[in-house]
Amino acid sequence: MTQWTLAARAEKMNPSVIREILKVTEKPGIISLAGGLPSPKTFPIDAFAQACADVLKNNGAAALQYDASEGYGPLRQAIADMLPWEVDPDQVLITTGSQQALDLIGKVLIDNGSRILVETPTYLGALQAFSPMEPTVVSVDSDEEGPVVEDFVRKAGTGADRARFMYLLPNFQNPTGRTMTDARRQALVDKAAELNIPLVEDNPYGDLWFDQAPPKPLTARNPEGVLYMGSFSKVLAPGLRLGYVVAPKNIYPKLLQAKQAADLHTPSFNQRMVAEVMKGGFLDTHVPKIRALYKQQCEAMIAALQKETAGLDVQWSHPAGGMFLWLRLPEGIDSIALLPKAVERNVAFVPGSAFYADHADARTLRLSYVTASEQDIATAIAALAATIREALGHQG
Amino acid sequence: MTQWTLAARAEKMNPSVIREILKVTEKPGIISLAGGLPSPKTFPIDAFAQACADVLKNNGAAALQYDASEGYGPLRQAIADMLPWEVDPDQVLITTGSQQALDLIGKVLIDNGSRILVETPTYLGALQAFSPMEPTVVSVDSDEEGPVVEDFVRKAGTGADRARFMYLLPNFQNPTGRTMTDARRQALVDKAAELNIPLVEDNPYGDLWFDQAPPKPLTARNPEGVLYMGSFSKVLAPGLRLGYVVAPKNIYPKLLQAKQAADLHTPSFNQRMVAEVMKGGFLDTHVPKIRALYKQQCEAMIAALQKETAGLDVQWSHPAGGMFLWLRLPEGIDSIALLPKAVERNVAFVPGSAFYADHADARTLRLSYVTASEQDIATAIAALAATIREALGHQG
Repeated sequence: MTQWTLAARAEKMNPSVIREILKVTEKPGIISLAGGLPSPKTFPIDAFAQACADVLKNNGAAALQYDASEGYGPLRQAIADMLPWEVDPDQVLITTGSQQALDLIGKVLIDNGSRILVETPTYLGALQAFSPMEPTVVSVDSDEEGPVVEDFVRKAGTGADRARFMYLLPNFQNPTGRTMTDARRQALVDKAAELNIPLVEDNPYGDLWFDQAPPKPLTARNPEGVLYMGSFSKVLAPGLRLGYVVAPKNIYPKLLQAKQAADLHTPSFNQRMVAEVMKGGFLDTHVPKIRALYKQQCEAMIAALQKETAGLDVQWSHPAGGMFLWLRLPEGIDSIALLPKAVERNVAFVPGSAFYADHADARTLRLSYVTASEQDIATAIAALAATIREALGHQG
Repeated sequence: MTQWTLAARAEKMNPSVIREILKVTEKPGIISLAGGLPSPKTFPIDAFAQACADVLKNNGAAALQYDASEGYGPLRQAIADMLPWEVDPDQVLITTGSQQALDLIGKVLIDNGSRILVETPTYLGALQAFSPMEPTVVSVDSDEEGPVVEDFVRKAGTGADRARFMYLLPNFQNPTGRTMTDARRQALVDKAAELNIPLVEDNPYGDLWFDQAPPKPLTARNPEGVLYMGSFSKVLAPGLRLGYVVAPKNIYPKLLQAKQAADLHTPSFNQRMVAEVMKGGFLDTHVPKIRALYKQQCEAMIAALQKETAGLDVQWSHPAGGMFLWLRLPEGIDSIALLPKAVERNVAFVPGSAFYADHADARTLRLSYVTASEQDIATAIAALAATIREALGHQG
């Protein structure tokens, strides 16, 4: 029997606690508020069917052949045109979902032990993507407006220990639903430039605003100091795995080489499908429908929480867009311990602890309002409230 | 202006010499024998068009949604069924092209400085994929039958320096076109098991045999000691980026976690397209057509070489399948120096030096016989021979 010697990073890889917990949520009849799955109602299936047929008919051989690692030219151009600051298409690198952009950024900027900064809490998938490069992850305290600039300064590090970057999700953050204010964006961008700390801006949800667009991106305020990540997963469909990163021209060649080594290029067929669907301003009419649907479902969840948790010390965020609402349980209730009880009552969520690099708040949990229907949301929130009441009863 | 600190691995990344050289081959009118591009004539465009329509009509929502990191169940089952040894579908991990499998294997098995063994020469893309994990790459001497077992033993390393694995491409190797003999396979597998050195078997070309199937895979001889990589790029189409790795059950969970962190999952849509196309034994009738075409083109190239290089001290391999032929120039002719001269005569190839981890043979070069037509192959080989004659003239 061959003995395999694992890399140190692989020895440290363990099945995600959350992933294991969520396995129990796969039972039939459960209403899951756990996943970050866009509503399948928003997938433009007919437009994709037409695009597939057109691409294969008009450009089949190219769409099925190997392609440039940078990505498909017309798609890079469409992305540059869409972004609200001056972007050269040569700065756009197409990635296999924006998750891959995190992997490439990690490879290019993180050495073993490098300090990197994240929000409190932050996107779990980013922690997972950076982890193989073995960084030292440091959480910056965050309030309602975003990361606290004073704490950013305190944790920035100096000399060889200066943070390689801070990773941020400024719009309708996963997991909290929080949006950074305009003032905080500017203050953080200015301080980061002063301290020579690059920023990584992840913006998968920015188009999914309810009443008004969020303040302008961090990258628009200092394009030479920020890597910008975008995605088609939430405005078209995640199953195509199409994301992108916009990089300053001095960093781009390194990301490109990491991309080439990682998977040669993102599927040429999928890039052409999306470029075809986007023609004629499709997103301009499509995305507002997603916004309206998600706004309505978010309101339904908040209405249900108000009704069902009346009298309980339960707090929740009021997202202005995106997919997630962040909830804080009454004192003494741990969301990891609560989950199996909730699952017994046919509702699932993600315990908040998963999203903290350190010092997790065990009372928090994340709810998605986009996958389940309005009616299911009402049923699920009633079940969640009953679970909390029962837990409080046992406690008392 | 923000100063970015790069990871050590990124500082070492430099634009591939070959990539830079090949840029000059993009001039109009050139016949490129350089790329490893399958003949677009072999892409089953109509079958894909039908599959896209069916998948979107019958399973659109699932095909466009996030999916399991392991891959699409029916595709994993189809792969397990197709392989010539007992494979459990739970051992199959779908990857974004087999290039990604190399990236994941590197993450799971290579620490900074780890010894890994490769053939002489070896697949350039594997060297690039492993490079971010900063291994020490050691070439094992190879002859016509494959890697020399005695040299494998000499270079295996001991104790903490024992090689983490040897990477091999046993069938119609890229770049040499060489196939490992049955006896050499068995001897190497036995010795590797004895020395506790895992093997990584890359098999993108195995189905493209001309007259008879190659000897059975290394993995079939010791499934617990070998990671097996396969691809749909050469038998269906590379533009979908679909590959897979088959792993022993103790290694699989680590590769899966690396996969999840790298891009969450391979496009669900593409996996369903290919599973749909494969139904009813499509590959059984499709692949023989590719074999016949490539055999004919390989024979055309060899005939042209025989005719055009008569009297020159030029040697070439006689592949029994696959896409590449390996050529050795007369003494004193360096293939890197020859390339710009060849490009002037409208023919391009890849200098062999790119494929060596160390001690490159500067007289070698790689020719692909699958992308260009038979007529173009004849024209290109005549031009190459003229370039060689001219170089010899200058030398003399």
